[in-house]
Amino acid sequence: MSRATRFIDACKGKPVDCTPVWLMRQAGRYQASYQAVRAKVSFFELCSSPDLAAQVTVAAVEEMGVDAAIIFSDILVPLLAMGAQIEMTHGGPKLEPLRDRAAVDKLKVVEPAEAVPYVMDAIRETNRRLDGVVPLIGFAGAPLTLASYLVEGGGSKSFPHLKGMLFADPDSAHQLLDKLTTVVTRHLRAQIEAGAHAVQVFDSWASILAPHDYRAIALPYLKRIFSELSDLDVPKIMFAQGTTVLLDELLEIGADVLSVDWCADLAAVRARVPELPLQGNLDPTYLFMDEAELGKRIAYVLERAGARDGKAAPKHIFNLGHGILPPTKTDRVRFLVDTVHRLTGEEA
Amino acid sequence: MSRATRFIDACKGKPVDCTPVWLMRQAGRYQASYQAVRAKVSFFELCSSPDLAAQVTVAAVEEMGVDAAIIFSDILVPLLAMGAQIEMTHGGPKLEPLRDRAAVDKLKVVEPAEAVPYVMDAIRETNRRLDGVVPLIGFAGAPLTLASYLVEGGGSKSFPHLKGMLFADPDSAHQLLDKLTTVVTRHLRAQIEAGAHAVQVFDSWASILAPHDYRAIALPYLKRIFSELSDLDVPKIMFAQGTTVLLDELLEIGADVLSVDWCADLAAVRARVPELPLQGNLDPTYLFMDEAELGKRIAYVLERAGARDGKAAPKHIFNLGHGILPPTKTDRVRFLVDTVHRLTGEEA
Repeated sequence: MSRATRFIDACKGKPVDCTPVWLMRQAGRYQASYQAVRAKVSFFELCSSPDLAAQVTVAAVEEMGVDAAIIFSDILVPLLAMGAQIEMTHGGPKLEPLRDRAAVDKLKVVEPAEAVPYVMDAIRETNRRLDGVVPLIGFAGAPLTLASYLVEGGGSKSFPHLKGMLFADPDSAHQLLDKLTTVVTRHLRAQIEAGAHAVQVFDSWASILAPHDYRAIALPYLKRIFSELSDLDVPKIMFAQGTTVLLDELLEIGADVLSVDWCADLAAVRARVPELPLQGNLDPTYLFMDEAELGKRIAYVLERAGARDGKAAPKHIFNLGHGILPPTKTDRVRFLVDTVHRLTGEEA
Repeated sequence: MSRATRFIDACKGKPVDCTPVWLMRQAGRYQASYQAVRAKVSFFELCSSPDLAAQVTVAAVEEMGVDAAIIFSDILVPLLAMGAQIEMTHGGPKLEPLRDRAAVDKLKVVEPAEAVPYVMDAIRETNRRLDGVVPLIGFAGAPLTLASYLVEGGGSKSFPHLKGMLFADPDSAHQLLDKLTTVVTRHLRAQIEAGAHAVQVFDSWASILAPHDYRAIALPYLKRIFSELSDLDVPKIMFAQGTTVLLDELLEIGADVLSVDWCADLAAVRARVPELPLQGNLDPTYLFMDEAELGKRIAYVLERAGARDGKAAPKHIFNLGHGILPPTKTDRVRFLVDTVHRLTGEEA
């Protein structure tokens, strides 16, 4: 039994007894225990209560048997402290859109340890309850993704407002990205100092930019984040939706682990970077399959990652290629975790 | 002056006097003339009026100076005839979602020439008004994209319902894709027989599937469409959002021209297929830039397509990598068309 170490060991390229597994959005609406909490408090009340955030974080670990916890929070939490107006609706977050320089100038460059201390308190409380059974991951959104929520005012299909600002008013756009980069960097540092054993940066909307634009616009800020945290000896993971298209750029960021989206072929990514620890990349909608079909897809991901002869692939953390979707059944998630462990050497 | 021939010639790999250009969604909300028509009729009333559809189709050609017309219609039009309930809202189409076998079974496999004759009438009326000045393109949605609208009931971020059907009830999903394939094929044939000089298939949501799933699920239906139309001697163009990720699959469909999305590098695609005519691929949000910046981006696309020394690249049709967005200014679109012509050899 080495749930306490196998995730961090894999992130550091060390041998593991079996492939570690955790799942993006492993604490969430698909769980009855989570829904019971949300029946009593709003989404952001849950994020801002260290007690409740620790409770749902730990419940996901206990119910699913994963090898890492990820602190229950949201990439938009630091934006609240910066002065953004955000409402969480059934269709996703709705923000008061920020479309000009005056609005950008008003955003406060906060110190998250002071402005959203409840995230760090939740990390401390979660570690207390986990008692070392599994490590705990902290996280933040990438500046581009955060900017897209702020400027569009929510989700979007083609992101005309953010791209309009980037291409018609680049000074304001870069002022915004710069402020976000500072806050994100501070927020990740604060989470690590509070006890996060690893951190992950989520660039969920990375693919709104073509590779040459991502390189010119987004990459310098991401490099700055990872470089400024280089004194902190915890694994730093980069996730972007758009791995195949943006691979050259993502590999320059300086992350210790690349989390691969569900469209990419893990073997192709592995061929490009023989030594880099990789995380991923099962399509979350495969969890809608029956166990027989899902089992085949899990085995396929493990094989593409390099697992052979019932042993774990070196430098691979099993995960989804995007977050768990609400209609997912909890028994399928437990089946996934058990199957990953069983197929890669866990002793019965 | 050879606007009458340069688009079709480029599609057939023949030499051209300058690079032909047309733009996806070139007739639309960004035009005052279009908005004036829409102030009087609903979206689907416009689609079902041959007179008004021809009017906005021709207006886009006259106002923008493009080298091809594309019939004003919508990929959802044949679905109306199949029995789908669709309402066009400000946030996009809303459909009565179709989630089980009974709903799939109810869909009628119509003959578009009889069920939506107004599309074919609009093609005939448009050709009458164009009088050979430029050719006219017909189009249809790809089965996967049409299925996604039907099953999700509109747009989606992660398409859980369609992918749920594909992965948990594949028989129903394939029954749906089969019906859509039959109607799409008939609809394209009817448009060609009515006078369309080329057709384009739009798989806007192609990238909801990873390549191995796109190959197993979507590719056979697309091959069937293009194969069943092979007796018709007009260029058949394939467009999918996700060109880089799905390139191997898209190249197997049997299209005469591949329309490349704005994330892809035209030079990389060209290197893979030296002989295939390519269309694209300017990011539509570059139209928000000022003329100086936009001009550089246009020149970059032309260069990546292989244009040299002020001459057109062989086998390249200039287009956007996705549709024109509503906030676009018409003078930028005219600037784009003029610049493409000017930089590739059009005589002053």
